[in-house]
Amino acid sequence: MKLTIERAALLKSLGHVHSVVERRNTIPILSNVLLDARDGRLGLTATDMDLTIVEEVAAEVGEPGATTAPAHTLYDIVRKLPDGAQIELAVQGDGGQMKLTAGRSTFQLATLPKEDFPAANDGELPQGFTMHSEELRHLIDRTRFAISTEETRYYLNGIYLHATKGNESQVLRGVATDGHRLARFEMSLPDGAAGIPGVIIPRKTVNELRKLIDETEGAIEIGLSDTKVRFKFDSTLLTSKLIDGTFPDYERVIPSGNDKTMNVDCKVFAKAVDRVSTISTEKSRAVKLSLEDGTLTLSATSPENGSASEELEVNYGGERIEIGFNSRYLLDIAERIDGGEAEFSLSDSASPTIVRDVSDSSALYVLMPMRV
Amino acid sequence: MKLTIERAALLKSLGHVHSVVERRNTIPILSNVLLDARDGRLGLTATDMDLTIVEEVAAEVGEPGATTAPAHTLYDIVRKLPDGAQIELAVQGDGGQMKLTAGRSTFQLATLPKEDFPAANDGELPQGFTMHSEELRHLIDRTRFAISTEETRYYLNGIYLHATKGNESQVLRGVATDGHRLARFEMSLPDGAAGIPGVIIPRKTVNELRKLIDETEGAIEIGLSDTKVRFKFDSTLLTSKLIDGTFPDYERVIPSGNDKTMNVDCKVFAKAVDRVSTISTEKSRAVKLSLEDGTLTLSATSPENGSASEELEVNYGGERIEIGFNSRYLLDIAERIDGGEAEFSLSDSASPTIVRDVSDSSALYVLMPMRV
Repeated sequence: MKLTIERAALLKSLGHVHSVVERRNTIPILSNVLLDARDGRLGLTATDMDLTIVEEVAAEVGEPGATTAPAHTLYDIVRKLPDGAQIELAVQGDGGQMKLTAGRSTFQLATLPKEDFPAANDGELPQGFTMHSEELRHLIDRTRFAISTEETRYYLNGIYLHATKGNESQVLRGVATDGHRLARFEMSLPDGAAGIPGVIIPRKTVNELRKLIDETEGAIEIGLSDTKVRFKFDSTLLTSKLIDGTFPDYERVIPSGNDKTMNVDCKVFAKAVDRVSTISTEKSRAVKLSLEDGTLTLSATSPENGSASEELEVNYGGERIEIGFNSRYLLDIAERIDGGEAEFSLSDSASPTIVRDVSDSSALYVLMPMRV
Repeated sequence: MKLTIERAALLKSLGHVHSVVERRNTIPILSNVLLDARDGRLGLTATDMDLTIVEEVAAEVGEPGATTAPAHTLYDIVRKLPDGAQIELAVQGDGGQMKLTAGRSTFQLATLPKEDFPAANDGELPQGFTMHSEELRHLIDRTRFAISTEETRYYLNGIYLHATKGNESQVLRGVATDGHRLARFEMSLPDGAAGIPGVIIPRKTVNELRKLIDETEGAIEIGLSDTKVRFKFDSTLLTSKLIDGTFPDYERVIPSGNDKTMNVDCKVFAKAVDRVSTISTEKSRAVKLSLEDGTLTLSATSPENGSASEELEVNYGGERIEIGFNSRYLLDIAERIDGGEAEFSLSDSASPTIVRDVSDSSALYVLMPMRV
C-alpha cells in the first residue's frame, strides 16, 4: 500500500472514524482503523463491534493495498501536522509497520493484519427511506437529552424510532425517556417508511450520527432491519446494531386530560428557574411552581442554604395549583424550545405535565412532578 | 444592615473573594463571606485561615451593619441575576437570615454571626516594597508551572521570592522547582526590597494573586514578614501565610559549565516536540534530541505505538550529542518563551540543560534529562 493525501482531507475522515473506536479495547484490532487504498480512494473503517463507520476519501494511490493502524494515534499525528501538509502512507515488506511521512516528520506505526479486522456489515437492509439532514437533526436534538443512562434499563438507552398514526395522518416518531421525563418528536411519514419496524437506536450511535449531520446538508438515506440501522451520507456509512429490547408503551405516560394551561416566555422562565434553583440542594434540585391568576411563583428551599422565590407574569386563568419539578429537567426542556413561548398543560400536583413549544408542534415533552 | 448595590460591582468583588473559599469546609463559617456595610462602602472578607482576601466596593448603605453569608451561593445568585440589576441586601430582626432582593427575585440566605468570623490579619508588616503589576505577572507566569504538586515536599509547593546578588547587581528573584525542572525569574531589585527575608509563597496564593493581576494596571504594594505576605491592590488586600520550610539551595542545580549551545525557533520546536511525543507512552512522555552540525533530530519510540522522528534546522556547531527529556516539560518551557528563539545550553546526556529566551534574559529554565 502506498498513497498520498492532503492533511485536511485525511483529518476530516479520521475525525469521523476515530471517535467510534473505544479508548480501551480488550481485542487489540478494535483499536485500529482499517485503511484500504485503491482506485484513487482511501477507505477507512472503524468498529466497536456494535457500531461500524466506513468512510471514503479521494487519495493519490501509488500502490493499492490495505492494512490496519492505531486509530487514535493516527488521528493525533494528523491533527498535529501543519495545515496544508501532504501525507504519504506506505506499507512495505512484511507489513508489520506503516510509514507516515509529511515534510521532515516520519512515523512508523505498528499495524495488525487486515485479515483480522472484523468483516464490515455489508449487504442491503430490507427497509429504507430518506430524511433531510435538518429533520434528523431536529429529531435527535429534541429527544436525545431524555435518553436514560441507567444501564439496567438498557431498552431506554436509546431513541425509539417508529412509524405510527398521529392525530391526523401517519407520522414518524422519535421518543426517549428515562422514566422521569419523556421527549417525543414527530414528523410526517417519509416515503417508504410506512412499514418500518419500531427500533431503538443506541445512544452512542445517536451521538456519532449527530456529529456527522453537522457536516452535511441534504438527504440522508436510512436503511433498517429488525437488528440493524444504517445511515448513508455522501461519503460516510454508519451501521449500527439496534438495542434488542422492547420500548415501553410510552403513549400511556402522556396524559390526555390536563385541563390547566400556562403560557410563559421560555427564556425568562429558564433564567428564573436557574436563579431559584441555586438554593435547591444538589441532590433534589427541586423547584416549586405556584400558579394563580396570571402569576407564576417559582420557589425553592433548602435546610442549609435558605430559600428563594421569583414571580413571573404568565398567561394562566385556571385554579390555584402548586407543583414541583427537578429544575435540571425544566431547563433541559426549556433549552429545546426555540420559539419564544412554552405551553404547560397541567392536571394536579401529582400528575405528569406536558410542555410544548407554542410555535412548533413537532415536539412534546412530559415531565413527572416531584413532591416539594 | 441594609444596602443597595449594582449587580456588576457586587459580582466583581464576589468573584475575587469566593474563589478563596474552599468548596468543603469542616468549619462552617469558613464557607461564608463577611459582609460589612458602612460609610458608603461594602467590605467583603473571605478566608481559608491561610489566605485572606479583603475587598471594598462602593454601595448605597441605608443602615450600617455586618453579617456573614454563604460565599458560593451568594456568588452564584448574583452571577445569575440580569445585567444592570439593583441588588438590595438586608438583615433584619435576630439576624438569622439575610434577604437579597432584585427585581421580582427574593432570596433568604442563612447567615452566621459576624463575631464568629476569624479576625482579619490586620497590622502592618515590617518589610515593604512596590512592584508593577506587569513585573509580578511575568514573575508568576515564568515560574508557576514548575511548582511541585507533591504534598510531602511542601517546601516546593510555592514560589521562592528573595533578594540576592545577580551577575551584576542586586536582584529580586522568583524560583520554582519540582525536582525535574526549575524556573528562575529575576529583575532588578525594587526600592525597599533589599532587606526582605526569602519567603515561599504558596501555590493557592500565587493563583489568586495572578487572577487579581489580570484586572489591575499599575503598582502593587507588597508587605512581608517572616510568616506573612500581603499584596495591596486599589481596593483588594490579599494576605497569606508563607510556607514554613527551607527552599533548597537551587543555585547548585544550575550548571555553569555547559559548553554546547543550540539555538532554535521556539514555535517550530514546540510543534515538532508535540508531534513526535504522540508516539511516547503516556507514562514516560520521553522524546530524544539528537544534535549534530546544524540539525536537531527529535525522536520517540514506544513498544506499543511504533516510532517517530522529525528533523529541524538549528544553530548548532558542537559535537554530536543525544539527550532525552520529558516532552511535557519541554512544551511547558517553550510556552513561556515569547521571543522567537530559544537557546539550549547542554553538557552531556546525563547532565541538566539550561534553556533561555534569547530576547529576554529575565527567565532561566533548567531541565533534568531522562534516560531514553
